[in-house]
Amino acid sequence: MTRVYNFSAGPAMLPEEVLRQAQAEMLDWHGSGMSVMEMSHRGKEFMSIAEKAEADLRELMAIPTNYKVLFLQGGASAQFAMIPMNLIGRTGEADYFRTGSWSKKAISEAKHFGGVKVTVDSEHDGRFTSVPAADGFAVSSDAAYVHYTPNETIEGVEFPYVPATGAVPLIADMSSTILSRPVDVSKFGLIYAGAQKNIGPAGLTIVIVREDLIGEPLDGTPTMFKYATHADNGSMYNTPPTYGWYLAGLVFEWLKSIGGLAGMAAVNERKASALYRAIDASGFYNNPVDPVCRSWMNVPFTLANPELDGDFLKGAGEAGLKTLKGHRSVGGMRASIYNAMPEQGVETLIQFMAEFERTRG
Amino acid sequence: MTRVYNFSAGPAMLPEEVLRQAQAEMLDWHGSGMSVMEMSHRGKEFMSIAEKAEADLRELMAIPTNYKVLFLQGGASAQFAMIPMNLIGRTGEADYFRTGSWSKKAISEAKHFGGVKVTVDSEHDGRFTSVPAADGFAVSSDAAYVHYTPNETIEGVEFPYVPATGAVPLIADMSSTILSRPVDVSKFGLIYAGAQKNIGPAGLTIVIVREDLIGEPLDGTPTMFKYATHADNGSMYNTPPTYGWYLAGLVFEWLKSIGGLAGMAAVNERKASALYRAIDASGFYNNPVDPVCRSWMNVPFTLANPELDGDFLKGAGEAGLKTLKGHRSVGGMRASIYNAMPEQGVETLIQFMAEFERTRG
Repeated sequence: MTRVYNFSAGPAMLPEEVLRQAQAEMLDWHGSGMSVMEMSHRGKEFMSIAEKAEADLRELMAIPTNYKVLFLQGGASAQFAMIPMNLIGRTGEADYFRTGSWSKKAISEAKHFGGVKVTVDSEHDGRFTSVPAADGFAVSSDAAYVHYTPNETIEGVEFPYVPATGAVPLIADMSSTILSRPVDVSKFGLIYAGAQKNIGPAGLTIVIVREDLIGEPLDGTPTMFKYATHADNGSMYNTPPTYGWYLAGLVFEWLKSIGGLAGMAAVNERKASALYRAIDASGFYNNPVDPVCRSWMNVPFTLANPELDGDFLKGAGEAGLKTLKGHRSVGGMRASIYNAMPEQGVETLIQFMAEFERTRG
Repeated sequence: MTRVYNFSAGPAMLPEEVLRQAQAEMLDWHGSGMSVMEMSHRGKEFMSIAEKAEADLRELMAIPTNYKVLFLQGGASAQFAMIPMNLIGRTGEADYFRTGSWSKKAISEAKHFGGVKVTVDSEHDGRFTSVPAADGFAVSSDAAYVHYTPNETIEGVEFPYVPATGAVPLIADMSSTILSRPVDVSKFGLIYAGAQKNIGPAGLTIVIVREDLIGEPLDGTPTMFKYATHADNGSMYNTPPTYGWYLAGLVFEWLKSIGGLAGMAAVNERKASALYRAIDASGFYNNPVDPVCRSWMNVPFTLANPELDGDFLKGAGEAGLKTLKGHRSVGGMRASIYNAMPEQGVETLIQFMAEFERTRG
């Protein structure tokens, strides 16, 4: 068996240790005689898995006790509606930052449920390559919340700071950056993330929400789209995605074993720095993003000659470097180097890039 | 390793062959060097898994070509809202059969989105133990659809026929009976099922919908709650629950290997008959359901002396017979004997019941 380095933007690599443990436990979890997939979500075995996962996540992120942690379904796309349906009612208006493809989707969906004021728009010449300075935006006095996307997965643009929004709750789509480094949860009203990048398998969505914000949803909100439904029932109003929850718990244990989010951040910083350094040192590769807001997680880059893109991808694939094709809206390449991408994977990519440039550039 | 017989109502047992294959492929699917969990949902590897699963399900159920098969999230509870949000608009009214706990939940949710006429109500003395005769209900002329629950998981009540609703589309929550026997899909407008009983792991929901019914949803329907969103994008508008989709595909292959739904039905009929025969032959155990509509999948039963319930559960557990406690609303015991419960599991339960009655009854 040869494992590859998979640079997919998501679903993405999982730590090999996690997969090996899931494999070993597949038919019999801890002597229960059952796969985790087969367990009643209300049984004592799965309850212990669920509680341990939440406790470990709370420890890793130092989540204050006045926040609920919800284990939901539907991905960030479901949150794009759940957030306004649950939170915009207080004033009927919300501020949104428009900094790339995913924040555009969040804005588009929110408009169905209330007034959306785009208080940051970083598009220039059809591209998103920057974020405003930390004091470069205003907060509307009548905003029920401010929504932003700390890391834009497609464009590779990441905020180097947490926006200060005063008394107005800050909401963050952390799908592609959660758990990549320590973050002060108390600065946020709500954090959400699809699991399939840094948490576990697709089909699980984690929401961390300050309890006072779990309020009155708009009329017509489906029961399953009310945060209160899930907060009041320990995320077990109906059957949760149990296997994803279990896998997430294994990932949290792995993160603790490597030094928590500070340890993870050190690795991620090394991986990203090495790759950007290689790109910047080359005349052949280019990353268009303002260096102050380059993503640690998603590194788009182009070749000086786009006609070589196909050969690059073919050669990379043969070298065990998979899923490097950039998003069609940006073109070129994209290396997503989430938590589970080993440093050796980034080193191998850098070596391949240098060799490709030497022979074909 | 000792595997147990797990009679959970869901999540429930999976075929051991399926778990063994998932275990073998956990770190490297078909030489790809990736776990299925790690694959981009848009990559050729996962696309082949997804397409094969859908094709196998279409073959197993003989799904006509004018039906879409959707692989969604959120469970039946999400469908309780999606169905009226998408389908009730044509007339603003729908008929619902009230035959147990799950149809009650469907009714409760639908009322938020339109007029609900309960055309069947089988509750007597606070219990649900029967269904109407095949000609024992009317269809409202202004109903956008008729909704029913072919198998009530909690009460163990199953329709022995498919209700004839004429030109009004019939909608069925098949969560706990799908794939247990052949069914004529063309009699239905929409079939839905959470995966965690007869399909695969929790977190996947399958919807089979006639194309002409994918119409205009109500205003305010979230994008993720519109059937058209998923039908128009091959269930990949956003990242689907890829691992559950893969597991479902393995279950479909297993069903084909044992003779498809006709083969499965023969096994299920034997399992259910043997268990009901044992209950009826005993003066100690009792099942309250009208014999014409006893469920093949969920068999509730009580002990003549409820004070022995705890001892029964303890002894059963020690014999490797797990999760037999009945739902709190019904009491007593419940043996859920879905597709993946081996015949030997039911035989072992019957032997344990006889021995318990002999020594303690």
